[in-house]
Amino acid sequence: MRILGIDPGYAIVGWGVLDYNNNKFAPVDFGAVFTDAGTPFELRLARIFDDVNAIIERYRPQAMAIEKLFFNNNAKTAIDVAQARGVVLLAAVKQHVEIFEYTPLQVKQSVVGYGRAEKKQVQEMTRIILNLPKVPKPDDTADSLALAICHGHAGTSMLGKLRRAGYKIN
Amino acid sequence: MRILGIDPGYAIVGWGVLDYNNNKFAPVDFGAVFTDAGTPFELRLARIFDDVNAIIERYRPQAMAIEKLFFNNNAKTAIDVAQARGVVLLAAVKQHVEIFEYTPLQVKQSVVGYGRAEKKQVQEMTRIILNLPKVPKPDDTADSLALAICHGHAGTSMLGKLRRAGYKIN
Repeated sequence: MRILGIDPGYAIVGWGVLDYNNNKFAPVDFGAVFTDAGTPFELRLARIFDDVNAIIERYRPQAMAIEKLFFNNNAKTAIDVAQARGVVLLAAVKQHVEIFEYTPLQVKQSVVGYGRAEKKQVQEMTRIILNLPKVPKPDDTADSLALAICHGHAGTSMLGKLRRAGYKIN
Repeated sequence: MRILGIDPGYAIVGWGVLDYNNNKFAPVDFGAVFTDAGTPFELRLARIFDDVNAIIERYRPQAMAIEKLFFNNNAKTAIDVAQARGVVLLAAVKQHVEIFEYTPLQVKQSVVGYGRAEKKQVQEMTRIILNLPKVPKPDDTADSLALAICHGHAGTSMLGKLRRAGYKIN
């Protein structure tokens, strides 16, 4: 199974593609889309849409794992992140990539096995699982790979299978 | 000048196209995009994107006037409205339609001449300005026409002209 992890944002969109087969993860490629603060917001959205489209076309993932959004203290930022996330979802659905959402808590539990794990722990465990020489930069890229790992675990767990079969399980 | 007004949302996107020439408004067409609550969210985004694209292709507006988003009490709703608004902006920028944002206060001041006008007053004044037999339904459609009127006024006022010329005026 090929998974595209996405850490959504409007200034930086972290992305990471990995393969998960026989309980083993293999990194395929990863990076980040950067948009310039001086650019009109709608052009930043267009850049994000085009770049995510190109990533999907190049790597043909079966699934996208993307962070679920919550409100934070900065209303303006949250609205703009949500607008950017909308165009990422659009890119996926237009190319028939199935979308899965995970909370930061789910990612921590899945990658570190501990819901209160610190960011550094998640990054280091991501590095180890993917057998990378160092933690990918920026943080958004590392986060996107953790999301992809989380989906790999979820998709093949019994719980994940039941969920995909339509059972409602929290 | 042909203006497309948009009242953004994810369940209903109100839209209205009007022409503004020689200080007169003429309605061209208006309506609403409805998406079904039972449909996966990303497919609702795709429907909104496709329908707004089709409206732009059909009517070729020079400008889009769209409501500026603020946080409200319902965080989940605000995030989903913002995600939908993102794909509307994407449709506009992809077709080179210039985007203008207005707050509800600006719309009320522009259409009724009074920032604390009630929704019903804005709708009735919109109906009169466009010489319509009755207020368009749903409310989202009426709101989109008010947004388009607001942009007509703003675009031809001295203030609007100065703003468009790059002057920073609040």
